[in-house]
Order: sequence, then structure tokens, then C-alpha cells
Amino acid sequence: MKHIISPLDLSVAELSDVLELAQEIIKEPKKYSNVCNGKKLATLFYEPSTRTRLSFEAAMLNLGGSVLGFSSADSSSAAKGESVADTIRVISSYADICAMRHPKEGAPYVAAEYSTIPVINAGDGGHNHPTQTLTDLLTIKTLKGRLEHLTIGFCGDLKFGRTVHSLINAMVRYPNVKFVLISPLELRIPEYLREEVLIENKIPYKEVQKLEEVLPELDLLYMTRVQKERFFNEEDYIRLKDSYILDMKKMAYAKQDMLVLHPLPRVNEISTEVDNDPRAVYFKQAEFGVYVRMALIMMLLEVHTTC
Amino acid sequence: MKHIISPLDLSVAELSDVLELAQEIIKEPKKYSNVCNGKKLATLFYEPSTRTRLSFEAAMLNLGGSVLGFSSADSSSAAKGESVADTIRVISSYADICAMRHPKEGAPYVAAEYSTIPVINAGDGGHNHPTQTLTDLLTIKTLKGRLEHLTIGFCGDLKFGRTVHSLINAMVRYPNVKFVLISPLELRIPEYLREEVLIENKIPYKEVQKLEEVLPELDLLYMTRVQKERFFNEEDYIRLKDSYILDMKKMAYAKQDMLVLHPLPRVNEISTEVDNDPRAVYFKQAEFGVYVRMALIMMLLEVHTTC
Amino acid sequence: MKHIISPLDLSVAELSDVLELAQEIIKEPKKYSNVCNGKKLATLFYEPSTRTRLSFEAAMLNLGGSVLGFSSADSSSAAKGESVADTIRVISSYADICAMRHPKEGAPYVAAEYSTIPVINAGDGGHNHPTQTLTDLLTIKTLKGRLEHLTIGFCGDLKFGRTVHSLINAMVRYPNVKFVLISPLELRIPEYLREEVLIENKIPYKEVQKLEEVLPELDLLYMTRVQKERFFNEEDYIRLKDSYILDMKKMAYAKQDMLVLHPLPRVNEISTEVDNDPRAVYFKQAEFGVYVRMALIMMLLEVHTTC
Repeated sequence: MKHIISPLDLSVAELSDVLELAQEIIKEPKKYSNVCNGKKLATLFYEPSTRTRLSFEAAMLNLGGSVLGFSSADSSSAAKGESVADTIRVISSYADICAMRHPKEGAPYVAAEYSTIPVINAGDGGHNHPTQTLTDLLTIKTLKGRLEHLTIGFCGDLKFGRTVHSLINAMVRYPNVKFVLISPLELRIPEYLREEVLIENKIPYKEVQKLEEVLPELDLLYMTRVQKERFFNEEDYIRLKDSYILDMKKMAYAKQDMLVLHPLPRVNEISTEVDNDPRAVYFKQAEFGVYVRMALIMMLLEVHTTC
Repeated sequence: MKHIISPLDLSVAELSDVLELAQEIIKEPKKYSNVCNGKKLATLFYEPSTRTRLSFEAAMLNLGGSVLGFSSADSSSAAKGESVADTIRVISSYADICAMRHPKEGAPYVAAEYSTIPVINAGDGGHNHPTQTLTDLLTIKTLKGRLEHLTIGFCGDLKFGRTVHSLINAMVRYPNVKFVLISPLELRIPEYLREEVLIENKIPYKEVQKLEEVLPELDLLYMTRVQKERFFNEEDYIRLKDSYILDMKKMAYAKQDMLVLHPLPRVNEISTEVDNDPRAVYFKQAEFGVYVRMALIMMLLEVHTTC
Repeated sequence: MKHIISPLDLSVAELSDVLELAQEIIKEPKKYSNVCNGKKLATLFYEPSTRTRLSFEAAMLNLGGSVLGFSSADSSSAAKGESVADTIRVISSYADICAMRHPKEGAPYVAAEYSTIPVINAGDGGHNHPTQTLTDLLTIKTLKGRLEHLTIGFCGDLKFGRTVHSLINAMVRYPNVKFVLISPLELRIPEYLREEVLIENKIPYKEVQKLEEVLPELDLLYMTRVQKERFFNEEDYIRLKDSYILDMKKMAYAKQDMLVLHPLPRVNEISTEVDNDPRAVYFKQAEFGVYVRMALIMMLLEVHTTC
């Protein structure tokens, strides 16, 4: 039995299988509408996350399965002091697969140790969120046609943004990928990622502070939010904040086929005027999130179409 | 694609179609038990409302569809500052139709602008609640046999009661309808409703303060709650409060076929002794609410019985 | 129509039918996977209880039915002052059967009076929790092979533990059952249970303070938690607390086929080292809870397998 706790729990080959299955589903969703009949997904959200939870639920319902669970810790047994290990052993009797979001890093890992059903990490603190990474990869693969030979810009809070760290970790496994890391100095990617992942693997990258100057080089731009509180001083914030807001003026510098991704929710880091630009694919990305979760559930439950 | 944001979004003809379909469903519910197979309803309740939410969910489940969503804003992305426009664009990838309740007037209207799936307003602040109005109309049409030639009493808080305003707006479209508006002076219907709807359309109406004196005239009595806090002074409250409580003593003055409706929840404005009177139809009304929502979902999704 | 409000609402014969049906389901669960197609369970949880709620939901989904409801009172009409009687009359239009948990003792009893669908009490205050008792009985019957000729130890807080009271009440109906009641003096079983149930029915029992001394006699050990706050003084707590924690050292004194049950959640009253002992069946017990609820729902809805 397999669990998905980190985005790297899938080898490049397994990942390729999941993405291909997702692309098959996109082509003929009806073919998959009953493959999980009689199967149940438990959504164990110790921390609310509507988007992720509903994406999992839509995925399971699309496959003909059903869903049970909780959407915040108040209404869970955690409030009564039960350990994650005990909860998952009980949930294993109730469902066939589970998606767990937990504020504590590592909680889904503990769950997987005691679970008799596949566990999917749906986000553990600032740590991992593998299905977001799968979503990003499916979006890139489907809309760019490839996962290699890409120059990818990451913009915003690169220090705390787990979706950024995960996607970098996932993309370094493909040939000829370059990174352009755009952030204020205090929000640069963490040391371990620079040293142990980029430098160690001899991945070309550069770090800059302003989006404008690098936009023309990018095949992809992955936007994230910069919260004011993250800046060390007001002065820097005022000087830099506009650099991290994508608008049509900036989009003019970008390639005609550069894609804009965002894990959502977006606050104001992408101006709404960009939404209608065909290069803005963040809402399509949310849609891909459902398809990739369908493929992942099928893989973990080892179900297949009969036709 | 159609959305239902205001009760008046349906023409009299469309409304008639929905009510007729609902009546067909009442006769043979089994015939409709699979028409929405594979379809998903998203219930987006930014404000809790168990009755309305469960009524929508029961409706979709009765049609063979499935349901996902949230029941309060805490567990939604709204807490992270996402706009309704962004949320609905994502939800459009997750579901085939959605019912939205929101504390802010107009929010479902904004959602409808950006949505690629039909949006049903399930209540926006004190503004609209179209499926309650459809429920009321189906109850009247089914149990009275007609929507015209009726003298309708509205009793209670007519100033803030959106169900009252909506039903008045809907009923003025039928011939020979008269209104008897029973409320304390400070809780009379709003000016615009009196001037622009009743007087402008030359609809016969009168406004009175005491229920007792008009009961014998009514074909229908629509009860709503009067909250003590709404009165300007304690003295008025003490003098009038019993006028807005329906009991069997008052029911003795009513016609033998007068119907009592109430949008529920009821607190103490209808004495429980009235519940067993055959004229008390407020619990049947809740049941009709499921059928009319089934019809509405079918209409918006353009699904039909095959037989 | 039948409701299940107290564990004693089922006669010994009816109980035997439910347990036998549950055992049939365990053998061939697939045979029952569509018996509730088109049926809806409402889970009305005025007080959160993830485990119980999800167990009911899993049961209904396993039978091919669907589920709607709420998981805490905040998101219910109770907040608007609606009575349980009114709520259940409305819910009767939405669902075919309901499971209700309520902080007030007797609330499910009131609901049953007004309901037109079967009501299952899913816990009312410290009062009743009949499906936990059914779960315990199914576990004992299936894993011990019998409900009679048993020496059953209850350990922990026997004063406030409703699962203990219910199971004692249920077990005294079977021949040759003996009880060993292990608790601090201040947490002994209530007077009425000792006088009116045990003594009146001439049931052999003894009351002791230390688990160690009686372990070798037991066929079953039903563990519950002892909260520090329940002790009258700190001194007693320190002297006794270890007596109420089951670990492998104590398990060495127990028979080779003694079963350990626990209603869960467990905090620290059973050391996790005991989990791997084959005599520890508390996680299996949670699994049996789903099967017995499936059987109960089938019985109350009067549905049967066609084959």
C-alpha cells in the first residue's frame, strides 16, 4: 500500500503515470465516472481549507465514490485529546482512502504509519502539500506540453511558500530547467534549498529583486503573495511592493506564450485585469487540481476503467 | 445559462413551468430519482442556515446527484481574503450548479457574473431569498389550487422580513390579489414597496395593527416573527405583542379553509396548539421547499426525465 | 415505526436479530451495498462527535444511501431558537432516518415523539448512547462467541461513564453474567444501578479499587478513562492513578483469551504498547460499530437484501 506524504514519494516514472492518467481523464471524464463506486474518501481537515477539501471531494464524486469527514478540528476527536495514530486506525474502518490536512508538520506521516488505508497529505503546516505540486505539474505538462527545457520564474514570498519549495524540488528532476527567483532579500528561498538542491544538482538559477527585469526570459511565472508583515521595514515594503504585483503593464514584457500560475487564493498580487489574458491559467490550474486528484486516488486505490 | 438571484428572475411563464414540474415530482418522485446522476451541487454557505442548506442537499440527493460545500465562512477561503469572484471561478471547476448564501447583499449577483455554472441565491443579507418565495408559491398553488383571487394577510415584522417583501413582489403579478398588512407601526412594510409596488400597480391593500380584526377576511395568513428589540418602546411592545401571536382562540375567527404559512424557524409567534389544525401548513411548506428546489435544479441544469 | 432512544428499546430477541444481521453483513458486505439506494440519513449533531457521526455516515454509505446533516449546533437552526420538535418535523421532509446527538438528556426522546422518520439517539448528554452499546455487544458476541457465561470487568470512571451503565443494563439480560467493578471509591457505579439493577436481579458483582488483583478472573475488560478532576483529593489520585492504566505488565496477569474493549477515544488509560496484543480489540470494536449501525439502519428502514 502506498501513501503520498511528500511530493517526492512518487518517482519520476510514477509521476509520469499519474499525469498521463490525469490527461486521459481530461479527454474522456465519463469513462471514469463509476470506477470508485462503493469506495469512500475520508477528508480529515484539522485545519480548514475549502479549496483543497472541495477539490478532493469533487475528485472522489467524479469517480463515483462518496465522501465523509470533517472540515475543522473543533468538530473532531482531536479536541478530546485523541492521537492522530488512534484517529487514523478508526478512520481506516470507515473509509477506503483519506486526505489529511494538519497544522503540525509530520502529522500525515505519523498517520501513514498506523493507517491501513492510503493516506494523502493535503498539507501539513508549512511543510508539504503534494497534490498542489501534482496540480502544478499537470498544468505545466498539459498547457506547455513538456516538463523539461523550461525557464521558470517564482515570484513573491519564496521563504515561507511551501508550494514554491515543493515545485522546485519536483522540477529539478527534469532536464534543462532553469529557475529565476524573484523576491525581496528577506524572503529569498531557504538556504537548504539553494545549497542542497540547486547548487548540489548544478541547476542554473538566479535570484533577483524585481519582476520587471526578468519577465522576458520566462516560460512560466509562478506567482505567490507577499504579506506586508514579512518585510523587515516599511521603507523596503513601499519601495518593492509594486514589483510583486503582476498587471497588464508588466505582462507586456512577457513572452506571448508565457504561462502565469498561482496556487490561489490570490489577494492582490495579480491584478484582476490579467485574468482575461490567455496566458493567465490559474483558474484552469484549479480545474487541473481535480483531475490530478482523480488520477492519484485511482492509483492509490488501484482501480482501473474496465474499457 | 440562467442564474436565480432574485425571485423576479423568473417570468410568470417560467415560474409556472417550475411550479408545474414540482407538482409532477410530488406525484411521482421516483421518476426523477436519477435525472442528476453524476451532477454535483456546491452549497456555499458563508452564513449558516441549516434548513435552507439541507433542503438544497435533500433536493439534489433526491435527483440522484451529489453534494459538496461548506456550511459557514470560517471554513472557507473567504477567511484568507479571497473575493467571491475568484471563489466562484474555482467552484465552477468543482460542481455543476451552486447555491450560495452570503451575509452581503449582492454577493450572489457578483458570483453569477463570473460563474460558469448556474448560481442560485440561497439568501443574501436582508435582500433576496428566491427559493423561499418559490416554496411559498408552490405551497399556495398546491394547497389553495390557485395563485390568483386571493386575500393574503402578512403578519409580524413586515419591515425587515425579506420573505414578506419577496412574496408580495411575486404575488402582485397575479390577478385579483389583495394584501392585508398586519404589523406594529414601526414595522410596516418599507416605503418603496408601498409606493412603487402596491400603489403603482393599483393593488388593493390595507395596513392594520391587530390580527384579530382582519382574520375573517383572509384566504392565507403568512406569519413572521416580531422581535422585541424591533419595537421603539416597551409600552407598545406589551400592548401589541399578543396581537402577533397566533393561537386557537384567534384561529376560531379564520375561515375554515384559510391556510397558515410561516417561513420557519418559528419561535413563539404561532402557539404549538395550532400545529394540529389542518389549516396550519408550515411543516408541509418545508416539504414543498424540497420539491421546488428539485424542479429549479432540473430547470437550471436542463435535465429531464427520459420517460 | 420504531425509534432507538435507549439501548433497552430493543428486546433481547430484536437485539439478537440486529446482531445476527450485522454478522451476516460482516461476512458478505457487498450483498448489502445497494439496499438503501435512494434513502437519506440525516446526522443531527448538536454537539460534535466525529467518531460517532462518521461511523453512522460510513454505515449509510456502505448501504448505498446518502447523508446530509450538521456537525455542531452553531450551524443549526437551534441557534435561532427553534425547538427540537420543530426541527425534527422539518428534517422528516428531508431524510428517511436520522441520528441525533444532543447535549440535553431526553432531546432525542422529544424528537421521536414528533418525528415521522425513525430517530436513533447518537448520545444525549450523560444519558444514553445505544449504538455504542450495540457496538460493544456485537464485539463481544463476535469475538467471544457468546453473550452469556461471562465475567466482565469495568475499569475507570464508573460513576459518569454512560457506556458502562448502558452495557451493564444490557448484559444483565443474559444468563450467568458476573461483573467486576474496578474504580476509585468516589467513582463507583451510581446507587440506582447497584440497587435496582444488580441487587434486584441478583446479579453477582463485586467492587474493587485495584485492577491488578482481579485481572486473572476476567473474560472481558472494559476500560474507560479516569479524569484527574473527578478525584476528591490529590493524594488519592496519586495513589490510585496507575491502577487504572492498563499496560503489558498488567496484561501478563490476564487470561490468554481475555478481551480488552474501550469505547474510544483513549487518552492514556491504555498504554500504546498494549495495542499490538491480540487481546486488545478496541480498534476492531470501532469497525464493528459500522456494521452494527448498518444492521440497525436496515432494521429501522425495513429494507432487506433481495437475494
